[in-house]
Amino acid sequence: MGITKYFEEFKLNEKRQTGGRTVTETDIVIHAGQSGDFFPHHMDEEWCKTQPFKKRIAHGTLIFTIAVGLTAHVINEVSMTYGYDRLRFIKPVFIGDTIKATVTISNIKDHKKPGFGLVTELVEVFNQHGELVMVCEHVLLVHKKES
Amino acid sequence: MGITKYFEEFKLNEKRQTGGRTVTETDIVIHAGQSGDFFPHHMDEEWCKTQPFKKRIAHGTLIFTIAVGLTAHVINEVSMTYGYDRLRFIKPVFIGDTIKATVTISNIKDHKKPGFGLVTELVEVFNQHGELVMVCEHVLLVHKKES
Amino acid sequence: MGITKYFEEFKLNEKRQTGGRTVTETDIVIHAGQSGDFFPHHMDEEWCKTQPFKKRIAHGTLIFTIAVGLTAHVINEVSMTYGYDRLRFIKPVFIGDTIKATVTISNIKDHKKPGFGLVTELVEVFNQHGELVMVCEHVLLVHKKES
Amino acid sequence: MGITKYFEEFKLNEKRQTGGRTVTETDIVIHAGQSGDFFPHHMDEEWCKTQPFKKRIAHGTLIFTIAVGLTAHVINEVSMTYGYDRLRFIKPVFIGDTIKATVTISNIKDHKKPGFGLVTELVEVFNQHGELVMVCEHVLLVHKKES
Amino acid sequence: MGITKYFEEFKLNEKRQTGGRTVTETDIVIHAGQSGDFFPHHMDEEWCKTQPFKKRIAHGTLIFTIAVGLTAHVINEVSMTYGYDRLRFIKPVFIGDTIKATVTISNIKDHKKPGFGLVTELVEVFNQHGELVMVCEHVLLVHKKES
Amino acid sequence: MGITKYFEEFKLNEKRQTGGRTVTETDIVIHAGQSGDFFPHHMDEEWCKTQPFKKRIAHGTLIFTIAVGLTAHVINEVSMTYGYDRLRFIKPVFIGDTIKATVTISNIKDHKKPGFGLVTELVEVFNQHGELVMVCEHVLLVHKKES
Repeated sequence: MGITKYFEEFKLNEKRQTGGRTVTETDIVIHAGQSGDFFPHHMDEEWCKTQPFKKRIAHGTLIFTIAVGLTAHVINEVSMTYGYDRLRFIKPVFIGDTIKATVTISNIKDHKKPGFGLVTELVEVFNQHGELVMVCEHVLLVHKKES
Repeated sequence: MGITKYFEEFKLNEKRQTGGRTVTETDIVIHAGQSGDFFPHHMDEEWCKTQPFKKRIAHGTLIFTIAVGLTAHVINEVSMTYGYDRLRFIKPVFIGDTIKATVTISNIKDHKKPGFGLVTELVEVFNQHGELVMVCEHVLLVHKKES
Repeated sequence: MGITKYFEEFKLNEKRQTGGRTVTETDIVIHAGQSGDFFPHHMDEEWCKTQPFKKRIAHGTLIFTIAVGLTAHVINEVSMTYGYDRLRFIKPVFIGDTIKATVTISNIKDHKKPGFGLVTELVEVFNQHGELVMVCEHVLLVHKKES
Repeated sequence: MGITKYFEEFKLNEKRQTGGRTVTETDIVIHAGQSGDFFPHHMDEEWCKTQPFKKRIAHGTLIFTIAVGLTAHVINEVSMTYGYDRLRFIKPVFIGDTIKATVTISNIKDHKKPGFGLVTELVEVFNQHGELVMVCEHVLLVHKKES
Repeated sequence: MGITKYFEEFKLNEKRQTGGRTVTETDIVIHAGQSGDFFPHHMDEEWCKTQPFKKRIAHGTLIFTIAVGLTAHVINEVSMTYGYDRLRFIKPVFIGDTIKATVTISNIKDHKKPGFGLVTELVEVFNQHGELVMVCEHVLLVHKKES
Repeated sequence: MGITKYFEEFKLNEKRQTGGRTVTETDIVIHAGQSGDFFPHHMDEEWCKTQPFKKRIAHGTLIFTIAVGLTAHVINEVSMTYGYDRLRFIKPVFIGDTIKATVTISNIKDHKKPGFGLVTELVEVFNQHGELVMVCEHVLLVHKKES
């Protein structure tokens, strides 16, 4: 289930595509229950009808959670999450939309901690119309091979 | 349920404290089910015993989700989330830990879109021992009053 | 799966005992997620330590929900719920407590609607120490046989 | 997050309106799982088609749970739930209905326990057509100021 | 809640019919979360459109779980599950389908363990069109009366 | 995410090991809610104390669901589930037990449908003590390469 991919093995602009997942009403209801965020944007269909977006929309944290889940299929045993930068929610995701992510290595640089480097994955999430709905930079702390 | 707080009304270094929430095994199991991330760090107690952290740890996306939920208690009708920057998971959160967040206005600046400004909330999440476990910057796009 | 028990067949003081159910942390977390009630009494173990009851307690609506579920094992096709009276939460229910209910026919009377009568079930919920934790009156609208 | 509102500060006929919430199929499925009530009224669409109400309906305990959750937004630190009276389910709630509650102070009276009084909130739950679907009286035990 | 039905009391070809249950999108999402099986057959509506079955289908383990639940209404205190044989998924079950099961005693034989016999229930699950969607043999180890 | 492994490429006695998963109280509570099986063996800790196994045990369908999920990590695009044979629950699984599965190709044979063969995987599930808790045969219908 795990792989071993060292810092030196990452290549700039390397790209991979995740599988897709349909965002359901169930996901939104469970996410409200997990986050405690019952804002009417997610939970009140009647109120949403009075708003520009017209329909209930998924929580940003739900889209981020699903996106990270879609990208996390294989454990790289010499890498760990350092953090996330520039997380932006570009367009609303509605019930029934299907999202998938493209992951592109967008930056590779040394880290002050000897034996480690930082690899940045640009995560772009698209809906079924090919529209970008979310983007973020996933920064990984990766072991160097020679270390 | 909603308030109206314009850009001009935010003050640098203004601080607020959220309530607390105990992170349960249930939260982790439901989060695995929502994210699709069943990595052994979260789901395999026996494997975790062989690791430096010894016990199952919460998903980063779970802690982020709970933290955002804790901070999101009141709807400001003239503000919306622009994005999140510099999200970092500083220390692992274990089953039974109780987390709460401190929110500090850390930056206020104009936005190129006329009538709007950007307000940054520094979100710091602490466990019951007062240790910082997560930090991020929540950037808000806020209407100006005069607009 | 269904039975047919008419108004005339209910007897005052008739008593039945339900099965038991252990109230788990999972039940409380799911109930918070369903009700939207994330009050610290249910969700913040650290805050609870500072309170007289010391530990997280189950939501009243959770205990009521479980109690009604325990009593509702067989469908009586000529009876429907009219309502509930005098619902009281006598003692807190903690994570790990096991509750069961005793149901006693406490009142039988005519109803203004011809062909119907009202039957009251006294529902008493006990924990594993035999302490009464919840009580309510379940009022049933039941068809008369001759109708 | 908490307020302090003493017995003397409640006024008869004072009224507040909660936010709304759409009752989803997910809520019903999760509630069946929480209550153990899998009666065909809630779970068997084909059977429901043969009944007067034609479609699956929400559990009474689900509507009560959501209603209590909608009303419970702010903790009053000098008040606690004494119980609920006259809970009635007036009309069925269907999947996709949006409910909200009106809370009116309907009774204020002394309590035998010195330093306490009883305040009754009449909770009326309406669907998106303005039809009353549920009603109950929420009785609060509230500290007196002078106590 | 329990009954006592000994080995000698089972009759070949005895048949019973369970209640029905509508398989919802919620059931599939929760089952993915419980099993960890996020295959696109269940989770990706867009991908499913490109497949012969056109729509998301329920997990086999979900249909088996619901079927066993439908058949397990009464505890027979002198019987326990020995195992399941020849479990087959004959047709896909889609979101919104309603399934029910027919249980027929298909085999009765002695067991090498003295005082016990094996009773086989043929479990056939049908959708709302009367099509067989799943079948299995449930083998029970049942006490003999004289033992 | 998918692979293509034809009938001819399976080898008798080929073995693989899945990852592990800790069976939690949450899993049992959610499974009761999904299956509708609230038997006291799974839900009533007090009753269980009076039984030989002393503690709540996981539903058989839960262990089967988790086991199938653990084995289903990669989609083989030329293979589909034909069914399961000889599913047996050998030992109870308790809350906190960690299970993992060994999958061994135990049979390979032609199928009457031209261009297809049947491959049997013996699935053995072990707890953290190395005890066999569940076993079944997973029968796959696999495309032949030359077809």
